[in-house]
Amino acid sequence: MKSYRKELWFNTPGRVAFINITPQIEEAVRESGVKEGLCLVNAMHITASVFINDDEPGLHQDYRDWLEELAPHEPTSRYRHNRTGEDNGDAHLKRQIMGREVVVAITDGRLDFGPWEQIFYGEFDGRRPKRVLMKIIGE
Amino acid sequence: MKSYRKELWFNTPGRVAFINITPQIEEAVRESGVKEGLCLVNAMHITASVFINDDEPGLHQDYRDWLEELAPHEPTSRYRHNRTGEDNGDAHLKRQIMGREVVVAITDGRLDFGPWEQIFYGEFDGRRPKRVLMKIIGE
Amino acid sequence: MKSYRKELWFNTPGRVAFINITPQIEEAVRESGVKEGLCLVNAMHITASVFINDDEPGLHQDYRDWLEELAPHEPTSRYRHNRTGEDNGDAHLKRQIMGREVVVAITDGRLDFGPWEQIFYGEFDGRRPKRVLMKIIGE
Repeated sequence: MKSYRKELWFNTPGRVAFINITPQIEEAVRESGVKEGLCLVNAMHITASVFINDDEPGLHQDYRDWLEELAPHEPTSRYRHNRTGEDNGDAHLKRQIMGREVVVAITDGRLDFGPWEQIFYGEFDGRRPKRVLMKIIGE
Repeated sequence: MKSYRKELWFNTPGRVAFINITPQIEEAVRESGVKEGLCLVNAMHITASVFINDDEPGLHQDYRDWLEELAPHEPTSRYRHNRTGEDNGDAHLKRQIMGREVVVAITDGRLDFGPWEQIFYGEFDGRRPKRVLMKIIGE
Repeated sequence: MKSYRKELWFNTPGRVAFINITPQIEEAVRESGVKEGLCLVNAMHITASVFINDDEPGLHQDYRDWLEELAPHEPTSRYRHNRTGEDNGDAHLKRQIMGREVVVAITDGRLDFGPWEQIFYGEFDGRRPKRVLMKIIGE
């Protein structure tokens, strides 16, 4: 069994961002030399997500609006978590909707994807360095 | 390490459907010959889900109603994504709540399940052919 | 390839609870002898979750309040599922938001975590014995 590990770093200029990281994951799969296996991609921070959906800007704006409805950033006093001095209570909730991780099949040395699947990093509390982990196992 | 790959196809008559696919996954696990390992089951489309919950029709109706409350299909003009000519903006949101994939343990050649766990395909934009991927690795 | 399986049992005094199970997962990783691989941790029941977030009591109260807003326990007549004689319709919905499982990378024999990641058991219908499964594969 082979295993391969790699990190991606992000420092988004705004609080919220969606970044297509599919090319970097494909590159890691090639580097791993794994032909058949599984690829885990997860946010290493608890106010960020990794998810699979469509690379369509209108949809990303829909996600922003919808998540803001479900877990508004303001008033920050709405969240007990913010009494610790943070202002990111909403980000911890948004991340639960969008998920922490994806597990993707590797077949014939490639991500085994449907026609529109793309992997995104979802940031809900940016403006500082944060990481994504890729872990690949297989043969 | 063994690996095994299989697809399931669906073409649901309505826009929304929940289909118990546990028997097909169990069959794939037998076909794989894997006794100890992991089984990934994921929607290959971004307006559908794979999730684990109860096979109870009342609950499925509750899911429909709840998802419709959280991300209504209409008015379709509500979603920027629909300006692309699609009418499935809501389906991309519903799928995030219900999830893209499950990873299930395989122990002694069987799905290692609690008493009520069943695997479902969740369709939110049906009436056309769509796929689920199973990828099994182990020994 | 090595594989390792272990169960954790819970019987929470209240209906809802969040329990940090990171130490038990770390112990299982050590017991497994796996240095490089993947660790699946999943609820074996369909009214409970396993998720990764912050070990901060204010945040856990925020989760309780937010989930209660999104899927209120009462009136129990709100849910068709409860016509079966259950009163846990809301718990099946809450569990979808918080998720069934996490998959965590194992690197150098340890959970490969970011600075604040902690694994939680999320109970939404407690007061009876329920289980979490750990399945570890790797080398």
